Amino acid sequence: MFSRHVDALIDAFRVLPGVGPRSAQRMTFHLLERDREGGQGLVEALQRALEHVGQCRQCRMLSDEDICGICRSERRDASLLCVVESPADVMAIEQATDYRGRYFVLMGHFSPLDGIGPDELGLDLLEQRLDSGEVAEMILATNPTVEGEATASYLMDMARSRNVRSSRIAHGVPIGGELEYVDGGTLSHAFQGRLEIK
Amino acid sequence: MFSRHVDALIDAFRVLPGVGPRSAQRMTFHLLERDREGGQGLVEALQRALEHVGQCRQCRMLSDEDICGICRSERRDASLLCVVESPADVMAIEQATDYRGRYFVLMGHFSPLDGIGPDELGLDLLEQRLDSGEVAEMILATNPTVEGEATASYLMDMARSRNVRSSRIAHGVPIGGELEYVDGGTLSHAFQGRLEIK
Ligand SMILES: [Zn+2]
Ligand SMILES: [Zn+2]
Repeated sequence: MFSRHVDALIDAFRVLPGVGPRSAQRMTFHLLERDREGGQGLVEALQRALEHVGQCRQCRMLSDEDICGICRSERRDASLLCVVESPADVMAIEQATDYRGRYFVLMGHFSPLDGIGPDELGLDLLEQRLDSGEVAEMILATNPTVEGEATASYLMDMARSRNVRSSRIAHGVPIGGELEYVDGGTLSHAFQGRLEIK
Repeated sequence: MFSRHVDALIDAFRVLPGVGPRSAQRMTFHLLERDREGGQGLVEALQRALEHVGQCRQCRMLSDEDICGICRSERRDASLLCVVESPADVMAIEQATDYRGRYFVLMGHFSPLDGIGPDELGLDLLEQRLDSGEVAEMILATNPTVEGEATASYLMDMARSRNVRSSRIAHGVPIGGELEYVDGGTLSHAFQGRLEIK
């Protein structure tokens, strides 16, 4: 409107998830008026991440190196392999649990309409991993969505045909959640997955 | 945690207003997993804006040039000068009204505790503008906050001592707003500012 570069920056911020025209404008003005140093830091951090962050050749996790730290670490249990949809899931599990096995990151889930099948999810790599005989248990931690369940069920078959044990993380009413406020799908899942009290 | 560059980028996104740790992480993963091209566009747009966007020497608006488009335009009425706190205010007025005068952007408001006084708000520049005799009316469009009102009242005195007419934009119940939901300060302002019906 009054500056080509300001308009272009407002536009560019729209690539960020959850950023509409108003927040893009607020971000632009904030950096240009009050935090040019922070803006320059963002330029450099983003440029470096785009240049140096790739995927681990073994688990597909975002990584600065060919093989990521978790795959390299001798202190992680190589017989446990947790399969997740995204790097954010790895971070959530690392932060919340004491899981000490390794991961495989699908970078998505089956989605035939978007052309996402076994190739896009790197399943050949996962097959090699299961074939290596190293994995005793594959823990399926895909999302409890239709696509996540379909993906998990495909992977379960893959494990079964290789005589690798597989498990699915438990889904149900969140701890501390009130039944009244839990969505219907979760509640129904919790009922179907009920455990007998012995 | 697993990538130095990923961690640094999550950190760097925190300079943006309204971006906490969770959204910074979401932004980072989104760009690295799904939109590296958009990320590269953001790097370039931000770098260019930081390099080329400065302030108009006449009105202090963010601008690619020494003198901004509005100050240069012969089609804007130089006898009307609207004083605002920020570039976002200029954009809001340009988008919502048919105002065709010029602007002066304070880039803040009086805030003695933060060391923001006449110098920081460029009031010497504003004085020169009023002294030039070009301005017939100064429209005060600072925010209806304590600081904005204090700033407006200081500027009113400045105009008065130079025999320049000044006006304040109207504040009150928003059009379409319901009294019940309007905050008390606004309602009290609307009562004090009531106009006699003739
Ligand atoms: Zn890895
Ligand atoms: Zn200007």
